[in-house]
Parts: sequence; C-alpha cells; structure tokens
Amino acid sequence: MSTKKLWGGRFQEQAAAWVDQFGASISFDQLMAEEDIEGSLAHVKMLKHTGILSATDSDEIIAGLEGLRTDLAAGKLTFTVENEDIHMNIESLLTSRIGAVAGKLHTARSRNDQVATDFHLYVKNRLPQVIDEITTIQKTLVSLAEQNVTTIMPGYTHLQHAQPISYGHYLMAYYQMLKRDKERFEFNQVHTDVSPLGAAALAGTTFPIDRQFTANELGFASVYANSLDAVSDRDFALEFLSNSAILMMHLSRFCEELSMWVSHEFQYLELSDAYTTGSSIMPQKKNPDMAELIRGKSGRVYGHLMGLLATMKSLPLAYNKDLQEDKEGVFDTVKTVLPALKVFNGMLQTVHVNKERMQQATENDFSNATELADYLAAKGVPFREAHGIVGQLVLKGIQTHQNLQDMSLETLQQAAPQIEADVYHDLQSDVAVERRHSEGGTGFDQVKAQIAAAKEALS
Amino acid sequence: MSTKKLWGGRFQEQAAAWVDQFGASISFDQLMAEEDIEGSLAHVKMLKHTGILSATDSDEIIAGLEGLRTDLAAGKLTFTVENEDIHMNIESLLTSRIGAVAGKLHTARSRNDQVATDFHLYVKNRLPQVIDEITTIQKTLVSLAEQNVTTIMPGYTHLQHAQPISYGHYLMAYYQMLKRDKERFEFNQVHTDVSPLGAAALAGTTFPIDRQFTANELGFASVYANSLDAVSDRDFALEFLSNSAILMMHLSRFCEELSMWVSHEFQYLELSDAYTTGSSIMPQKKNPDMAELIRGKSGRVYGHLMGLLATMKSLPLAYNKDLQEDKEGVFDTVKTVLPALKVFNGMLQTVHVNKERMQQATENDFSNATELADYLAAKGVPFREAHGIVGQLVLKGIQTHQNLQDMSLETLQQAAPQIEADVYHDLQSDVAVERRHSEGGTGFDQVKAQIAAAKEALS
Amino acid sequence: MSTKKLWGGRFQEQAAAWVDQFGASISFDQLMAEEDIEGSLAHVKMLKHTGILSATDSDEIIAGLEGLRTDLAAGKLTFTVENEDIHMNIESLLTSRIGAVAGKLHTARSRNDQVATDFHLYVKNRLPQVIDEITTIQKTLVSLAEQNVTTIMPGYTHLQHAQPISYGHYLMAYYQMLKRDKERFEFNQVHTDVSPLGAAALAGTTFPIDRQFTANELGFASVYANSLDAVSDRDFALEFLSNSAILMMHLSRFCEELSMWVSHEFQYLELSDAYTTGSSIMPQKKNPDMAELIRGKSGRVYGHLMGLLATMKSLPLAYNKDLQEDKEGVFDTVKTVLPALKVFNGMLQTVHVNKERMQQATENDFSNATELADYLAAKGVPFREAHGIVGQLVLKGIQTHQNLQDMSLETLQQAAPQIEADVYHDLQSDVAVERRHSEGGTGFDQVKAQIAAAKEALS
Amino acid sequence: MSTKKLWGGRFQEQAAAWVDQFGASISFDQLMAEEDIEGSLAHVKMLKHTGILSATDSDEIIAGLEGLRTDLAAGKLTFTVENEDIHMNIESLLTSRIGAVAGKLHTARSRNDQVATDFHLYVKNRLPQVIDEITTIQKTLVSLAEQNVTTIMPGYTHLQHAQPISYGHYLMAYYQMLKRDKERFEFNQVHTDVSPLGAAALAGTTFPIDRQFTANELGFASVYANSLDAVSDRDFALEFLSNSAILMMHLSRFCEELSMWVSHEFQYLELSDAYTTGSSIMPQKKNPDMAELIRGKSGRVYGHLMGLLATMKSLPLAYNKDLQEDKEGVFDTVKTVLPALKVFNGMLQTVHVNKERMQQATENDFSNATELADYLAAKGVPFREAHGIVGQLVLKGIQTHQNLQDMSLETLQQAAPQIEADVYHDLQSDVAVERRHSEGGTGFDQVKAQIAAAKEALS
Repeated sequence: MSTKKLWGGRFQEQAAAWVDQFGASISFDQLMAEEDIEGSLAHVKMLKHTGILSATDSDEIIAGLEGLRTDLAAGKLTFTVENEDIHMNIESLLTSRIGAVAGKLHTARSRNDQVATDFHLYVKNRLPQVIDEITTIQKTLVSLAEQNVTTIMPGYTHLQHAQPISYGHYLMAYYQMLKRDKERFEFNQVHTDVSPLGAAALAGTTFPIDRQFTANELGFASVYANSLDAVSDRDFALEFLSNSAILMMHLSRFCEELSMWVSHEFQYLELSDAYTTGSSIMPQKKNPDMAELIRGKSGRVYGHLMGLLATMKSLPLAYNKDLQEDKEGVFDTVKTVLPALKVFNGMLQTVHVNKERMQQATENDFSNATELADYLAAKGVPFREAHGIVGQLVLKGIQTHQNLQDMSLETLQQAAPQIEADVYHDLQSDVAVERRHSEGGTGFDQVKAQIAAAKEALS
Repeated sequence: MSTKKLWGGRFQEQAAAWVDQFGASISFDQLMAEEDIEGSLAHVKMLKHTGILSATDSDEIIAGLEGLRTDLAAGKLTFTVENEDIHMNIESLLTSRIGAVAGKLHTARSRNDQVATDFHLYVKNRLPQVIDEITTIQKTLVSLAEQNVTTIMPGYTHLQHAQPISYGHYLMAYYQMLKRDKERFEFNQVHTDVSPLGAAALAGTTFPIDRQFTANELGFASVYANSLDAVSDRDFALEFLSNSAILMMHLSRFCEELSMWVSHEFQYLELSDAYTTGSSIMPQKKNPDMAELIRGKSGRVYGHLMGLLATMKSLPLAYNKDLQEDKEGVFDTVKTVLPALKVFNGMLQTVHVNKERMQQATENDFSNATELADYLAAKGVPFREAHGIVGQLVLKGIQTHQNLQDMSLETLQQAAPQIEADVYHDLQSDVAVERRHSEGGTGFDQVKAQIAAAKEALS
Repeated sequence: MSTKKLWGGRFQEQAAAWVDQFGASISFDQLMAEEDIEGSLAHVKMLKHTGILSATDSDEIIAGLEGLRTDLAAGKLTFTVENEDIHMNIESLLTSRIGAVAGKLHTARSRNDQVATDFHLYVKNRLPQVIDEITTIQKTLVSLAEQNVTTIMPGYTHLQHAQPISYGHYLMAYYQMLKRDKERFEFNQVHTDVSPLGAAALAGTTFPIDRQFTANELGFASVYANSLDAVSDRDFALEFLSNSAILMMHLSRFCEELSMWVSHEFQYLELSDAYTTGSSIMPQKKNPDMAELIRGKSGRVYGHLMGLLATMKSLPLAYNKDLQEDKEGVFDTVKTVLPALKVFNGMLQTVHVNKERMQQATENDFSNATELADYLAAKGVPFREAHGIVGQLVLKGIQTHQNLQDMSLETLQQAAPQIEADVYHDLQSDVAVERRHSEGGTGFDQVKAQIAAAKEALS
Repeated sequence: MSTKKLWGGRFQEQAAAWVDQFGASISFDQLMAEEDIEGSLAHVKMLKHTGILSATDSDEIIAGLEGLRTDLAAGKLTFTVENEDIHMNIESLLTSRIGAVAGKLHTARSRNDQVATDFHLYVKNRLPQVIDEITTIQKTLVSLAEQNVTTIMPGYTHLQHAQPISYGHYLMAYYQMLKRDKERFEFNQVHTDVSPLGAAALAGTTFPIDRQFTANELGFASVYANSLDAVSDRDFALEFLSNSAILMMHLSRFCEELSMWVSHEFQYLELSDAYTTGSSIMPQKKNPDMAELIRGKSGRVYGHLMGLLATMKSLPLAYNKDLQEDKEGVFDTVKTVLPALKVFNGMLQTVHVNKERMQQATENDFSNATELADYLAAKGVPFREAHGIVGQLVLKGIQTHQNLQDMSLETLQQAAPQIEADVYHDLQSDVAVERRHSEGGTGFDQVKAQIAAAKEALS
C-alpha cells in the first residue's frame, strides 16, 4: 500500500502500488525538476512580495528550495513513485527539510498551473537550443556551398537526370528549408513564453497574487489572459511537435539522398568513417547508419505529434488526467531532435565530395536536352515544337548510343535547320549551369548571391 | 489509348486509359483552374515585358487566356483526363482557341513551378477566409460572454465539479484558443505568400525572366530564393494542415462539452432545432448532430496532416510525382474547416443557456470546498493542513447528505476552531466566483477586462 | 573515443562518443537480453548438431551463454554503449568469460537475422500476456453482466436518451469488442511465430545450417520462406501496434463513459477510492484519474503505430538502420497496454453501480417514445406516420412538462385513436427492455443468452 | 429552407440549406446505393416471412425496391441533399413510386443498423476484389521469378552492396509480403461478414424479427451477438484501413527500389513507356510516375487509418454522428488500393531487366567479402578473426583499386596463410549465390523451391 497522499483528506481506501505506478509520472516528469523548483521559488517570492505569506515563512521556504536546487544539481535528490509526480516529490523533500511550513508553499497555487508552468519553462528553454543547432547546420551548409559554387552535378526530378546544377545550389536549398524551420521554432516561442502560474486549479484564486511578478521572475514575456485556458492549453507543445515533424521530414530528405549518393552506383559523396558503421558479417560494408537513423527517426516524431493530437481531441475543459500524456512525446522529441541535428552537422562537415564523378555524370546523359529546346525557342521555334524536336533527337541518341553534344551538326540540322555551330557551346553542362541567371536559379552568380544573403542573415 | 501527350517526343508506346486515369490529377486540380489561368497571365505578361515574347504573340496569348477566364467563370470549360492535369487542360484549350502560338506560353516555365504557383495561390487565397470565419466566432463568443459575465456554472476538472466559474469566463477560454489559431494561420501566410514562378523545372532558366514582375502581378509578397526549394517545398501546406488540425481539436473540445451539456443529465444548454436532427426510429430524439460531426471531422483533418507528412518523408529533391498527393488533403481540409467554422458559429449564436440550472448545479455539490480551504489558509492554517481538514468535512458531508454551506457553525468549528460565521458568505458560489480577482481569473472584473481587451483586439 | 568495434576491420577513423550514443540501441534493446541469449543458445546448439562447430567449441560456448543467462536473471550483467547493442554486448561479455572461442558463435549468422529473431521472440512472448489480460477483463464483464441483467439504464445515442436498456447488455457490448481484440492478437501470432534465424545478413548462408532445428529449439511454429523477407519484415510489429491501437480505442470509449457516469450530473457509477485521486487544491475532488489516463494513453499507442508505418515507408530491401526504430514503440506499447488492462480490470471490479439512479433516469425522459411508435405500428399505422404522431406528443410533453406515461388516455387518443389502455404497460421502461426479444437485443432473455455463450467461450 | 424531414415530428424550426449540406452524407454514401437497396429487400422479405407485414404490403414494397434497383443500375436515380443520406433518399424515392405503404419498410429497423449493414456489405464485397488483385501480382512475381532464378544482382543492406543474390529471390520476397497482406484481408472478412441488421437503433426491437433470415438473404456468415455493439462497431473498417496501410507500405518499398533501379546510375530495370511520363520542359525525361504515385499514395492511406482511429477515440456508445466520418476514408482507400494494385501489376509485367548490368554490378565491388570470411571460417579461423582479416584486405583493395578476386594468391596468403587457390572459385558472384543452400536462402535450389511452393499455393 502506498503512503498517505497529500490530497487524501476525503479518501478512505488507498490504491495498490501497481495502480499508483500506472498513474505516477515521476519516472519522466523528474526531467522538469529544475523547472519545478524555479517555479516554486518564483511563487514563494511572490507570496512574500504580496504579503500573502509572512517574510519569515517565505524566507524559510526560499532557503529550503534553494537547498533542494543545489542538491538537485549535485545529483543528490531521490524521487519516489509514492509521491506520484515531480511536484509532490519536491514538496515532500521540502517538508523533510524545513518541516510543516513547507505546506504554505502551495497557497494560491494548484498542481494544474504548476505543471503547466514547469512544462512551459521546459519547452521555452529548449527552443533556443533547437534553433542554435539549426543555425550551426545552416553555417555548415553555407560554408560548403561556398566551396562548391562551381561544382557541377546532375539535378534530379523523379530521380532522373533533369538538368545540371551547382552542388552549392543544392546545398542552399536545404539552407532555405532550415530557415523556415527556424522561423517556425521562433514563432513557437510566442505561444510558449506565456506564464500560466496563478491560474490555480482552473479559476484563478481569491488570494491577492501578482502574476506579473512571477512571470518576471521566471522570464516569461507575458501571462495567460484566461485561467481555464492556462491550465488546459497545450498548443505550444503541439506546435513544437509539428515543427519538429517538419524539420525531421527535411532531414529525412537529405539523408535519403545521402544514402543514395554514397552508394556504389552513385559515388558522389563519401562519408567519414566516423559517421558510418560496418557489418558483423560482411567485412566490406561501410553503412551510412547515422543518415539512415535520422531518416528513420522522422517516423517517431510524426508519431508523437499524432499521439498528442489524438489525446487532446474531445477533452473537456479544464484539466484532465489525459493531459499527463503531453510530456513524454515532447521529451522524447527533444531527445531525438537535438542529437539528430548535431550528428547531422558532424556528418555534413566531414563528407567528401567526388567532384569529378558528379561532373562526369552530367556529360553522359541527356540532361542538356532542355538547353537544346531553349536554344530553339530562342531562335523563334514555339517551345512546344522545340520540345518535340529534341524529344525525337533524344530517342535517336538512345538508339545510337550518342549524347546530344556528340551528334554531328548535320544530324542536328536535319532535325531543326535553325541549329548552328554555336549550339555545342550551349550543350556543355557547366555552361548550362552558369547561364541560368534567373533569380534564385542555379547560375553561379545566383548561387553566390544566395550565399551572400545567407551569410548576412546568419551574422 | 490516350491521345498524343504534349511531352511525348521521345515516347514510342502509350499508356492504357486506366493507367492514365490513375496518374491524372484533373479530377481534383481543376479546383485551381482560376489560379492556373492567373498564373499563366502573369507569366505571359512578364514574357512580353522582358521581350522574351513579341508583343504580338503575347497579346494573342493574353487575349486567349482572358477568354478562358471568362468561360471558366461562366462554367463553360470542360476538362479531360487525356490532358492529365489542369495545366495541360488549360494549354490545350488555349491551343484550340488561338492555335500554335499557344505553344509559346510555356517558354521559360515548367509544370513544376507552375503547379507550385497555383497551389500557393490557392492556399494564399483561402487563409484569409479561414481567418475571417474564426474572427466571426470570436465575435460571437465575446458577445455571449458579455451577456454571461455573472452566469454561474460549475467549473470542471476531470469532469468533476471543481470550483464555480462564470460562463462568460468559460466562453472566453475558447476566444483565447481561437486567437492562437488565428495567429498561426497568419504566420502560415508568411511561408505561403512566396512566388515559386520562374524556378522552372528545378534550376531556373536561361531566359531573362523577371520573377519580381510575376510576383507583383500575382500579389505575392516575395519570391523563393532557391529554385530547387521552390519546386519541392510543401511546408506551407503542412503548416496549413497542422494549424487546421489544432483548430479542429479546439472545436472538438467545445463540441464534446456541448454534447454533454445538452444531455438530459446536464441540461445546461439547449440547441436550436436548426442545428439538431431527429431519429428515424425514436420520435423524441433531438440530436446535436452538427456538434458531433464537427468533433468527428477532427479525425479527418488529423489524417490529412499525417498523410502529407508521410508522403513527404524521404523524398529526394526536387520534384517527384509523389508530390501530386499534396493537394487533395488540403482541398478537403478547406472544404471541411470553412463550413465547420460557419456551422459552429451558427450553432453558438442560437444556443439557449439554462442559467438557473447552471447556477443550481453549483449549490448542491462541494465545489466550494476550496473556498473553505482558502478561508482557513487566510487565517494562518498551512494550506496543506487546511486541505486535509476540508477533505474530512467533505467526507462527512457525503455521508450525512449535507453540503458545506448547510453544516452548522458548530460542526465546522469542531473541524477547525478558526472558522467564524463569515464563512457562510464565502461559501456562496457567486461570491466564490466574484472574489477570484487574480489576473485572468474568473472574477467578474477579470472577465470584463478580458472582454474589453478582446473587443479592442477585434475592432 | 570509443573502443575498437567488432566490425571495424576496414575502418580507419572512429566515431566520437556522442555519435556512438546516437547510434547505439543498448539503452532499450537490453529489454531483449533474455531473448538474445536464448537465440544464441539455439544457434550454437544447431552449429554443434550440424557439425559446423566442433562439440568442444560448442559446449564451451553453450556453457558460457548459460552462465550469462544465470547472471542476467540475477541482475548481474552490465551493458555499455561502446558495445552498441544487446548483441554485441552479449558477445563481448561472452568473450570476457570464455575467450576467443566466443568469436565462433557468430558463424553462419548476422546481426540482421539475430535482431529479427530476438524481436520476434519478444512479441511472441508478450502476445499471450495481452490475451490473458483481455480474458480477465472479459470474465469480469460477464460476471458483472450476470449481476445486472435486469438493471435498467438509459441507452444512449448521440449522448441523448434513446431507449432503456439492460446494464448487463451494455457490459456485454464491451465483451464483444474485446472478443475481436483477442482474435486479432491471436491472428497476430501467425505472422509473429516465424523464425528468421538462418537468414543471415540477407541472403542465407553457405554453411549447412538447419533452420528447422533452431526454430524448434526456440518454439517457433515455422521459418521464414525467404531470407530477404526474414530480415526486413516488420509486419508482425505493425499488426501488434494496430491491434493495440484498436484495443486502446475500445478502452477509451468505456473510460469516456465512465468519466461521465461518475460525474455529479450522472451519478450512475461510483469508483472505488483506490482508482481515483484527489486534488492538491480542491479537497472535495475524487477524480477518475485511472480512467482518464487509459483514455489518454490511446493517443500514445496511435502515435507508435503511425511512427512505425512512417519509418517503414519507402525503405529499400533488405535491412536498413531505420529499422532500429521498430522496437521502442512496441516496447512502450507493451508497457502501456498490459498495465492499462490490469488497471482497467481492477477499476471495473470495484465500481459501485447506483441501480436506482439509473432506473429513475429512464422514467423522467421520453425514452419510451419508440415503444409508443412501435405500439402504433403494431396496430397497423405505417411506421413513418406513427413516428410523426409520437413526435408531436413529445413536443407537447416538453411544453407541458409531462412524460408520455403521465398523459391521460384521452390526450393520447386525441393524437391517435388506436391507442388503448394497455399502452401504459408498454410505456414502462423495464417492460420496454424486457420485450426486446430480438436476437442480440437488450431483452433479458437475450442478455442471458449472450452471457451463457460467453461463459462457454471463456471456459 | 429544406423540406420537412422524415424524422421531424417534434421539430419546430428547420435548418438552413448550408447547415443541411454540412450534415448530409448523400454526396458520398450514394456509393452504397446498391447495398442499401439489397439491405432493404432482405429486410422486407423478412418482415413478410415473419408476418410483421402483410404479404400484400410486403410485395408492394419488394416490387418497388426491385424497380429502384433496376433504375439504379440504369443510372436513372437522382439523389438530393434535402434527403440527407442514401437511406432517406431511397425511402423517399420508394414513396414516390409506391405511396404511403413505403412507410412500413422502416418497421423494426433504424438508420443505425441500416447504415451499418450497408457499410458491412460494401466492405465485404470489396475484400475479395482486393485479394484478387493481390493474387494477380503474386502470379506475376512468381512468373518473373521463374525467369530470373539465375539472374545475379547485388543484394543490398543500407543501400550498400552486401552479397550477390538472385533477382528471382528478390522478387519472391515481395511475394511473401503480399502473402501476408492477403492473409490479413482474409482475416478482415471474419469481422466484416457479420450482419448488424436487426439491432435497430441500439437495443433490438420488440417486433418478432428473424435476424438469421436477413443474414442469409444478404449472404452474411453470422449476426452480431449484441445490438449496441452492432451499431457502434467499426473494427472491420479499421482493420481494412490498417491492412491497406501495410499493403501500401509494401508497395512503397518496391516502388522506391524501382525508382532507383531505373535511374541513370543503376539502370537495372527499364520501364515500359506506357508506365512512365515525360516532362513539359525537359525532352529527354522518362519519369517513373506510376511508381512514384503508388509510393506517394501510401501517405494517403496512412492518413485515413489515423483519421478513423482519432474519430473513434472516446466515442460513447452507441451511435454518434461522428461515425458518419467512417466512410469516406474507406471509400477513398478502395479507390486508391484497387487501381494501385492493377497499375503495379501492369508496370511489373512490362518491366525490362538489364541482366548484364545487374551481374556486372556484383563483380566490381567487394560484395564477395563474406565469401572470403566464410572460406576462412570453414578453414577453422574464428569468424570474428576472419572478418577482421577480410576487412583489412578490403581496405587495401580500395586503396589499390583491386577487387578481391583480382588480388594475387600471394597477397591473399600474406593476409591469411590458410587461403589456397580454390578461393577464386568461391569469389565468383554466381558461385556465391548458388552456394547459399540454406533454407530460404538465395541459392538457386532454394529459389526454385520457393517458386514451386508458391505455384502450388496459388493454384
């Protein structure tokens, strides 16, 4: 049987230990121990400031909490399932330390606003960490892009060679995705950086509390305007999960390409040994495990998003125990996203680029077909007609094992008399890339402009 | 067998009709017909402006497109599966109308940037509609809250009576949720209101196009900085689905409560006949169908979010046909969310509030127990101790069928000698509500302040 | 830096510890330590049996593994992140114990078939546990149903009183849901109880292994017919997650009803103190926490299903590191479902039924309206017409605050002259229930028949 | 304003048309028109058989329904939103046709059991279609496997060359996945092929109906044992969605590989023109659109599964309007899965296999490294040691651009003196494949055995 509960006044029977175990959250919410103590410190300082508690009582509680904070940092606190959650555990430890006065800490507060405060603080503190890791990757991307403005590779659509592009341009596409990710996490802070403390159980309190005071103490930008909303809102967590899901989706796309590009068939990139693993049975293997794992972990984060959305569905106001399920998915997402970003960055920084192989790949295919169509369109052939002419030439080239640039001028002119000798210039893959001067295109000048803008944004 | 495809130059065999059918998107992307014509008009005006096309050719195409626009508005255009998608359909109709010069429209453009442009325009145009419907509901909520500042009802946690609250306060909690929803949809516009046009297939183009010109024509705030990103990004759609999922979750919570509150057991609210339906077999039934349907439709929107996240996972750059799956979920979400909001508002406006029943419900329960605990805490009893004392009194009350306010002073004093006659004042439910003056609390002054702030924000 | 890896022959650089940490699975796959040792024992016995290893070598390895098994049971084994996963950890511990001969254990095996074997064993062993817990609840339901065949309560549709039903009938509806759940978990075993061992890395092996021998040793019903499929299949895990999601959905429905039925408004049921908790601030609260938590945990299991589906999507054959993400969701689902079922059963067993309140609730509503319509239909009035007549009477009743059974015969006959005095018999709620003799209906005989069939099925 | 509703007896106000529109299901449930008529026919025949309706009335209704069935088949029925759903539409059409007697059809039935019956029939009828399409693909796979038993290709893990395998073996892996899919859909029928008809609104009926009669008429294998369960159960739909999600996941894996294998880098396969499309801008493109689309559509089906799970969560018994959301996801899944399977089969049948390119790919890599390790292990070197030796040789080979089979015996012996000249035999890729005789391995005999077993299973 469990020990007598702090809330047990009206209860006659007690739960079996295994039932308590099921209901207890201490196994995971101890991750918020620091936030819980901070929240309590802010609360008691406010109780003192407003005179709700006497200075003597308040100071005793403050000293006790500060002691617990020190012990926590030193790894000296031990939590128990009997005390259910981090709040009851901390209060119980406080009582052991300072006696019955600890019972006054909970004046004008409820676990409902307390847990909301802890959870807000937890997410509020992690958002800048996520943003920092994203920025680190962006810097790596920009730096690599700068080294690869003129590295030519096949651009793909449908995983088919489409048109040659700059590898730097490719890298900057991911810079842009991460830019949006960052903006989403920054916006996430708007609905996170709001203090629920003082909403009490659901309705506010009759005590003359000062919610701005506690918000200031805790560094919150504002306070919830409605107490029911304060204890039942988990939008900030859903935003975090949704933003993380989209972020992981972006990483999964890169990792998918990476896993192809290090394959025997592509050989565009080579990963550092430090980011690959071998096989227990096949001695030659060098597996892009980290890339695969990041890709695979997108599913996990998707799952957490879906899980919380399902849990929140149809919940009546204000607090329901179902809401206890809000935390583990978020904690696990933090534990997934932060190292995934760090590993991703390390992997990226140490990747070796086989520039020659990339360039060659653009020369023995038909990815310059658009150049020829554009060439004809520039000579006045309606684009649709030009497209048809070049399609026929490609078919002929496949049958005769000739690329477009290897066909004789005579052959080309038979297909379209407008073609002249200058066409061979246009058919070179680096010329094809260089000439795509349109804004945001893969032309070298455009890639350089993107890089310059990114460097300014990051500085 | 299908007709010769516009892209068919290199192809020797054709697909069977049922294969074409599987690949075709015209059954749903015709919803973007208007956007497609607008996009083409902007594009050809730019081609004229930059001199890429002659004024004569351009003007012919412009006239042709404007003709199609008129016909579309008049419901006169017919689309075919043979032409696959809305882009090919429009181009084919244009060719029928103005002949071969139509083929020049596709100069310096690809279906990849074209479809992205259409889809951006589609979402960009719907976001303000969603925001407007949300605002309408907010106004209804504020208006109802204003009428119900002093309407007393039980506040619930765990669906148990917790503390009495103002019904106006309850309504304003939903106002706050919708406020965040609106902010999310507004932020959604940031990543939507960006023009992909000019990214061409994936790499930009060699033609001297002017992307700012087309962006201006179409009312886009900016252009994509990277062409690969422009054709492969669907973040704006994922944001829309995620925001819609959270919105529907909020509505599901209200509808859940509504369905309980109109039940025989609660009878707090009564719905207008116009928002209920009957039973084909039970003549007495008056079912809150609309509320249930809105609640149920949250699942559908969750599903669309999960579907697109799954589809996007691990997709290599740039365009892949998988991306064709991006639209139906978004279209269906628009088709779900807009009427759901409208119906929700109508239902809310016509709901009848049984004020007496609500108030009574706060008087024959123990939801004033916190008042008593707070009363004792204010008299210097540590809160935890006060909580225990009141818990015992509640237990006694249950056993003797007495509410706290019905117990004699003597009984109360036996439990806690600090109790005096003024306690009965505090135990009244309207006093309990009125006294919760803490910021954002349910106190009448606080509810009024929330309403005032909301009215200013909405004006 | 980490220690030299077992697979590290061709590697020159090593991963940083934090990269290893990201890739390592030992933090969770140690849950399969027992299965891993069992799998290795079966494998080495087969190597001995087939003569691939000498009896001497085999016996040394067997003794070593048995020693590890004993130590594991005694809690004496320590695992390290350096050894990545449970397989490498066990092998490393084996090497410490018996020296280099341990290296022969991995002959004709790969981690790919090894991990698949462990995971199959893990799920295979949990399925009967889940089935047993479901059976326990079914027995409780049948027992409660037996005690409540004639307990009358309102049957609900749309959360509106529809027709009176037997509470026993209601309980048996959940019995039926759980019956299907059980059948699904039994079917789940079909695709789980298959041995992947011997598939090696992906292609089988050149060693003359005997897969039937290992399958028999491990109690598997059959072996995978295709080695590629054996190492890449996770259908059995997806089935488990899907079945668990549907199971949790069923529990969520019951818990939802429970949370309403213990509310102040319904008061149909009362939970034992042992399955409720109090509030830290509101002394009167008795919250159905366990029910809410089970309901809320449905989201978590949904999320795991969605997560694994997303992870598996588009994975090329055969093994990819993404598959490492298959386990945590399944482990957590086991850790969620088993105690949820146990707590659910305990809660159910100790619930108090307020029979009078339930019965009363069927008497002051219009849930006997169908009886009247059926009465008229039996007298030859087309059902649609009868429905309309009764609808008008209900409307009148609402306006005059009279239930149907309280209206005078004259009033009733004005609405429909076919009505006679015997109508009052039909309007009694227990008569209404009793008379629903249709197969599977709520009639007492039918409920008894359901119970009898269930008892036979469970015995 | 809408017309008077069939259930409208007690209603005074009517819904606006746009509210009706939101609640109406006729736009999609008309897909079940045939099932609805069949269900009504069975019902009325039972009413006649049991004497609940007179023969005259019954025969009139039967004739009317048969007339409607004929008109439906001829495309002559028109449905209206005013009549809400398919049930009310059919009844209204019946009334127009045969007059007031139509009102007797609904005796002893409710829309709740009616819609459940229709939906069960709908799924019951589609399951064999899905199973047939899967069987067709299995036959194609077996036939292709038979032609490719000795076609050698690289087997992949982590998308790295692992060990050479038979292409026939690869194809048979998908045969196995589809075998499980089929078994799941067959099991799906168990919970689908159950008649809810006669459950009425939720509680059964007082009329002496015969549920076995209607079940027999409709070809159902059994009837629901509990009426509450009958109208609220959607497990069969969830099973269908879950099974479809797993099926689509399998297809997505094949399509992912296909899209890589037709790429310029792999060139293992070539798709028929009939299953590819071109680009509007790049004349050379031949895109595997169908494969990508099938892959992408997995997300859509995942979404439908998640959507229905979310909708069902926490729904109280028995029927709630939320359940109306059960159908569209299932209908769309049928509309997705059936053509996806058909297109998949056509694509598979017409794929061209570049056998030489596949074989070559196994000769200029190190995928025979395991052979060398196994060779050494067979000579008594502990496998772990052998693995290390070969790893070093691979590293040397990479540095000196030599494959293992190209190294001199001297070089090999320096690494391991046990190596003799017969090693070169083992290092050939076809020998490596041929020798994997272990059960279910890629050895030619094993692949043939798989094919033989499959042919027997399919015959």
